Amino acid sequence: MSEQTIETQTHTDPDGYVNGVHLETLKGTVSAIAKESALGQCKFRANNTWMGGAHNRTTITGFYGACQEIAHKQQYELHADEPPILAGNDVGANPVEHLLNALAACVTTSMVAHAAVRGIHIEALESELEGDIDLRGFLGLDESVPKGFTDIRVNFRVKTAPENIDTLKQLSAYSPVFNTITQGTNVDIRVEAK
Amino acid sequence: MSEQTIETQTHTDPDGYVNGVHLETLKGTVSAIAKESALGQCKFRANNTWMGGAHNRTTITGFYGACQEIAHKQQYELHADEPPILAGNDVGANPVEHLLNALAACVTTSMVAHAAVRGIHIEALESELEGDIDLRGFLGLDESVPKGFTDIRVNFRVKTAPENIDTLKQLSAYSPVFNTITQGTNVDIRVEAK
Repeated sequence: MSEQTIETQTHTDPDGYVNGVHLETLKGTVSAIAKESALGQCKFRANNTWMGGAHNRTTITGFYGACQEIAHKQQYELHADEPPILAGNDVGANPVEHLLNALAACVTTSMVAHAAVRGIHIEALESELEGDIDLRGFLGLDESVPKGFTDIRVNFRVKTAPENIDTLKQLSAYSPVFNTITQGTNVDIRVEAK
Repeated sequence: MSEQTIETQTHTDPDGYVNGVHLETLKGTVSAIAKESALGQCKFRANNTWMGGAHNRTTITGFYGACQEIAHKQQYELHADEPPILAGNDVGANPVEHLLNALAACVTTSMVAHAAVRGIHIEALESELEGDIDLRGFLGLDESVPKGFTDIRVNFRVKTAPENIDTLKQLSAYSPVFNTITQGTNVDIRVEAK
């Protein structure tokens, strides 16, 4: 896996924050959901528009949670494309790279938040991900070849007290994206005329 | 699911292109991998750096495929964060929204490319995704609650000849991200001291 320079960051937290997470806010959410489970029912959303060829654009504006519609502070736009060798123009990361991004982001956030509520301080955290795909599956050249990732490796490097390392590894298992990818989930696709 | 205005696009393809996909390029890749399966072995990669709190940044620079290291034309940076209600500052889509983006992008690209090689013309294609998560799982409030998405719904609207609709639905099943999410895959997480 290629190396790249990553800045080391030291997080000196102001009062009420651990790992940059405002503990009262997080604990308030946990406490509210513990008392009223309906508050924890979330629906996350994305809209996508095909831009031609391998290029498409996702917009994300808000979600449902805490029994209400919640708008993001801003609309997010994400572009996907393929590199030239895969018949694209390379104006965005490709879809499977976007999946690795989702996994990296989710495991990172899950470790940081769960560490915060346990009083585990993290000074720096970075990760490298690599996943294997045999394109014969996607291209339909061999029905016995899986079409998706067969293995994904995630290597975290963390700056923290040494005794926290094993705990952080265990906390990674709380990640929703990690669980979705490792456990599998139902995806219902419908196609209708526009 | 919230509606939003999406432009309708008509793709008038120049010679050699179907759905904006250059057929000779795509068919050349397929033919090369059919002859030499090692060319289809890909390793996709992402590097992530924690920025503090719920904010982290992924960089994507290149991948391994066709028996060589291939650099993207540019480096991609993707930011993830959480909204305030989830103790973040909302400077990016959250990780599970990034997963929906990966799924939308991949199924779209898969349908468009497989349609192109079959001579199926698509004039416009858009989708809305919604996925359910019960936060009691992630928060560790109830061990019986799944931590990831339990159901994801993807609704495509496509402008094409009516007889193509069922075929396009079938072609969606070639998507690597769809297969990764529905079938599950191995994710090996390691955590070491920095």
